Amino acid sequence: MSDGSKKGRDGTFALTCAVPDSGNDTIQLAHGGGGRAMARLFDSIVRPAFDDPELDRRHDGAVLPIEGALAFTTDSYVVKPLFFPGGDIGTLAVNGTVNDLAMCGAKPLYLSVGFILEEGFPLASLRRIACSMRDAARAAHVRLVTGDTKVVDHGKADGVFINTSGVGQIVAPTPIGPNAICSGDAIILSGDIGRHGMAVMAAREGFGFETPIESDCAPIAAPVLALIEAGIGVHCLRDLTRGGLASALVEIAETGRQAITIDETAVPVRPEVGAACELLGLDPLHVANEGRFVAFVSRRDKDRALEVLRRLDITSGAVVLGEVHDGPPGQVSCRGPLGVDRVLDMLNGEQLPRIC
Amino acid sequence: MSDGSKKGRDGTFALTCAVPDSGNDTIQLAHGGGGRAMARLFDSIVRPAFDDPELDRRHDGAVLPIEGALAFTTDSYVVKPLFFPGGDIGTLAVNGTVNDLAMCGAKPLYLSVGFILEEGFPLASLRRIACSMRDAARAAHVRLVTGDTKVVDHGKADGVFINTSGVGQIVAPTPIGPNAICSGDAIILSGDIGRHGMAVMAAREGFGFETPIESDCAPIAAPVLALIEAGIGVHCLRDLTRGGLASALVEIAETGRQAITIDETAVPVRPEVGAACELLGLDPLHVANEGRFVAFVSRRDKDRALEVLRRLDITSGAVVLGEVHDGPPGQVSCRGPLGVDRVLDMLNGEQLPRIC
Repeated sequence: MSDGSKKGRDGTFALTCAVPDSGNDTIQLAHGGGGRAMARLFDSIVRPAFDDPELDRRHDGAVLPIEGALAFTTDSYVVKPLFFPGGDIGTLAVNGTVNDLAMCGAKPLYLSVGFILEEGFPLASLRRIACSMRDAARAAHVRLVTGDTKVVDHGKADGVFINTSGVGQIVAPTPIGPNAICSGDAIILSGDIGRHGMAVMAAREGFGFETPIESDCAPIAAPVLALIEAGIGVHCLRDLTRGGLASALVEIAETGRQAITIDETAVPVRPEVGAACELLGLDPLHVANEGRFVAFVSRRDKDRALEVLRRLDITSGAVVLGEVHDGPPGQVSCRGPLGVDRVLDMLNGEQLPRIC
Repeated sequence: MSDGSKKGRDGTFALTCAVPDSGNDTIQLAHGGGGRAMARLFDSIVRPAFDDPELDRRHDGAVLPIEGALAFTTDSYVVKPLFFPGGDIGTLAVNGTVNDLAMCGAKPLYLSVGFILEEGFPLASLRRIACSMRDAARAAHVRLVTGDTKVVDHGKADGVFINTSGVGQIVAPTPIGPNAICSGDAIILSGDIGRHGMAVMAAREGFGFETPIESDCAPIAAPVLALIEAGIGVHCLRDLTRGGLASALVEIAETGRQAITIDETAVPVRPEVGAACELLGLDPLHVANEGRFVAFVSRRDKDRALEVLRRLDITSGAVVLGEVHDGPPGQVSCRGPLGVDRVLDMLNGEQLPRIC
């Protein structure tokens, strides 16, 4: 922000722009009507926060340069509560979509933002979320270039839902995805798991764990680009969101028609996360993350890939998790501390609703 | 559809795919959990309906070819009711975003789809909406290439909200937008106005007008591409959605810092729409449309532009509406049947909430 913001006492940026409508500091149905109030809401909160020249065109979309093939992805965010230790729905909406682009082997470039706002939602909260999005976009080097706001009547949404879609430029030299994995591939996990899910759950239920758990929500494009730049043979990438590590591995094994074996003792779980999972009867392998991924790389590149990742803060705790092999297609086995294998499945039913 | 659908008795396609979960034909929270139920929902409804090879990759995003500059846009759809004469939320979600791309001077290519589903929402309705989206995408020659589903608890949404984002390839030779309008430009309106807004309102409130009003919801990329192909000097395009014709003209005049005068007697309004507006005290100039646009073109191209548009069914009723001139920047005047000018403003407050 150049002049539309100032550093607040709590360390976050506070937009100084005026409240859109006098006398009422909450979202009104008129803010969704396509008329003056909607224009004012956009001009006073979204535009100054996102601060991209494309938004100043006030047109129906953005016009953008790109070279070569593009990656295109979308996600809606309905996390509850909206604010949690380590982030909020805005941070999540930017990082989640940035990460999906990175998982395609793309450099994230542009994001769109669609807000669905509930009548009565405090403008101050919207402003805080818009600022989180701006900060997250800057940290991830993406531009928020086009947006939309809709308003629904009181009781017909839950504060705010956000959709972000993203466009990136493919930089990986070969296609990345479940179909590209092959027997012998090493599976690397980028760091400890389970923090996002447990942080959101603790915030929602008001659990006061002895050691507070912060979400791992973060952009993971930089480590992916570093792997590609180093010439590592990257076959598949997957961020470990809803459904956790286990669901991601099962989906990859099923789609790629390969077998996977992982070493449970290699999976990093922080003590406070492990304790919270044990207390609540949850398996950390099924808990959501928002800044973690697995990379399937050529066996010969395994050590170099680890080295590249460990040089970056966000992936300094990367480990070799297991490998792809010629077992039954779609089967994911997990070898436990006593040497006994168990077969992993996708999350069945619902563990933690509305985690992202 | 190849094998996943058959033509139903009512003329629409009915997917034959099995119901995702036995014993309960509605959305469950587990459908949003990132695990087995979510995968099943996607595989049984979304994938067979959309039927795009990119969706089969089961990856976090789509990888797509594009040439030159791209247009990128987003919209969320919260229309109430979900089904209305002339369309439903699915038709709207495809056409609305296709139209936004066309308004950038782009050929629409790819759409993403994000569903926010309420627990308890009937799967049959979701299936019907997915089929509408497939049919609308085919009609508009765009591909639905990537998607996401989220589920929120009962009472925390209103059935289903849909976000679509779109990517298109810029084909206009010069930038199109409010900043490109200039004094002397002719303003062309593509056809009669007010049908979408009145159709949705009648469906919502249960009004039984003598002549039923059908939404004008339709893709308008073809006429835009025809104008560009014919070499017409197109300066600005705008579809007339929320806020209607008046809000669109005011926003363009304000952003482009020009004055506009239109001839009210030139505005086509069908008799049944005019009668319904009069009955309800609404100004047709503020009522939403979903298949109408204004084109600002060079004065010298006016007649040829009309000719190009009138050749196509969707724009056969195109008219010259007015012109841009050197009056007070941002002012939009409307000359009535008695020769008296009134100044138009954007819609103030809320006329018809949740119209799209």
